[in-house]
Amino acid sequence: MKRIEVIKNVLDANQSIADQNQRLLNKHQIFAVNIMSSPGAGKTSLILQTLAKLKNKLRTAVIEGDVASTVDSEKVKDKATAVVQITTRYMSENCTLIANMVSRALKSLPLDNIDLLLIENVGNLICPSEFALGEHKRVVITSLPEGDDKPTKYPMIFADADAVVINKVDLQNYVDFDVPSFRNNLVNLNPEVKIFEVSCKTGAGIDNWCSWLLHEMDAKAHQVTNKGG
Amino acid sequence: MKRIEVIKNVLDANQSIADQNQRLLNKHQIFAVNIMSSPGAGKTSLILQTLAKLKNKLRTAVIEGDVASTVDSEKVKDKATAVVQITTRYMSENCTLIANMVSRALKSLPLDNIDLLLIENVGNLICPSEFALGEHKRVVITSLPEGDDKPTKYPMIFADADAVVINKVDLQNYVDFDVPSFRNNLVNLNPEVKIFEVSCKTGAGIDNWCSWLLHEMDAKAHQVTNKGG
Repeated sequence: MKRIEVIKNVLDANQSIADQNQRLLNKHQIFAVNIMSSPGAGKTSLILQTLAKLKNKLRTAVIEGDVASTVDSEKVKDKATAVVQITTRYMSENCTLIANMVSRALKSLPLDNIDLLLIENVGNLICPSEFALGEHKRVVITSLPEGDDKPTKYPMIFADADAVVINKVDLQNYVDFDVPSFRNNLVNLNPEVKIFEVSCKTGAGIDNWCSWLLHEMDAKAHQVTNKGG
Repeated sequence: MKRIEVIKNVLDANQSIADQNQRLLNKHQIFAVNIMSSPGAGKTSLILQTLAKLKNKLRTAVIEGDVASTVDSEKVKDKATAVVQITTRYMSENCTLIANMVSRALKSLPLDNIDLLLIENVGNLICPSEFALGEHKRVVITSLPEGDDKPTKYPMIFADADAVVINKVDLQNYVDFDVPSFRNNLVNLNPEVKIFEVSCKTGAGIDNWCSWLLHEMDAKAHQVTNKGG
């Protein structure tokens, strides 16, 4: 019982720090997206495609979460307005980013010069679903080679997602992935979810994904302005 | 600090139950393998290939660990001597199997009629590396579409593996995965590791994998006999 109590306390404390993070982001008019997926589904690739597509429209910063290594930050560093690496290996939570880590990362970002913050979470379909970071939107990437049963097997993360990006559609002819069945299972679990089919390798579908992101940022900006007025 | 202490206590308690599990398995001359990977890398597919290949040689039971759903048990149930499903969604640890769950599963298996126990862990490259279950061998599956940087990004699980199975080699021409570079990084981290290249789709490489399994079972059986004599 002691452990369960501790977990509840940890989650409550995390939510309160996530709320602080969001207030800070709102103050600086930064739109934050928490990007989650299995290892290798394409978080960094989607971030790179997004940075390339939006580079003339937005100033985008990236927080890179990883258990170990700076492989992803290296790929992103010359393409974003700013990049912060969080390495979780020796932290008390190593299987996900938590709000406290993001709070510290925000301190080292030039908040007045950022419009969009992409947070690449640790590669994992379980732990990240439990920890809010202060983000405005939660995005899950799945990829064709993983198989179409992931919403059934990892329901928590798919149920809470604002958008799901189906990546690696260029492999459609080489793997067994039933897109209509995946969509059907996902919508049963999460009727409001937005779904995008993309290939971060060929660039297919990236326009739609970026249009949605811009639309959501715009909606959020108006909401903040209206509240402020 | 309280949380870190609790985690240490949890890991110590887990190791002691894992040791009990292994003593019980040894008593019944059962060889147990803990199979870990990202979601969708091919744990169930490797188990199905192994069951098919060894069905006339061994009596094999399977423990299926999943956050939710019985999708994998359904696939395996008619092909194994016995199958037990563990669903972790509402447990205090939901991102990995722990020794206590396996201990309970062992109670419902016909231990005198089993030679090999394949334990499919929850799809995750982080949490399962911390929790021993009582297994004799630890196997990590990686798959070509995930990319070749996984040992660098998830070093704990790869450093502790007895064997790494590189799955989905049938996709070699369609994805960027540098096999020599992967092997090199892995061996730097874990010089003793056995590496197998397989396709659970075509069956390529499954013979080598099963030969290793039989060889290791044989070595273990002699070790137990010698100790007993």
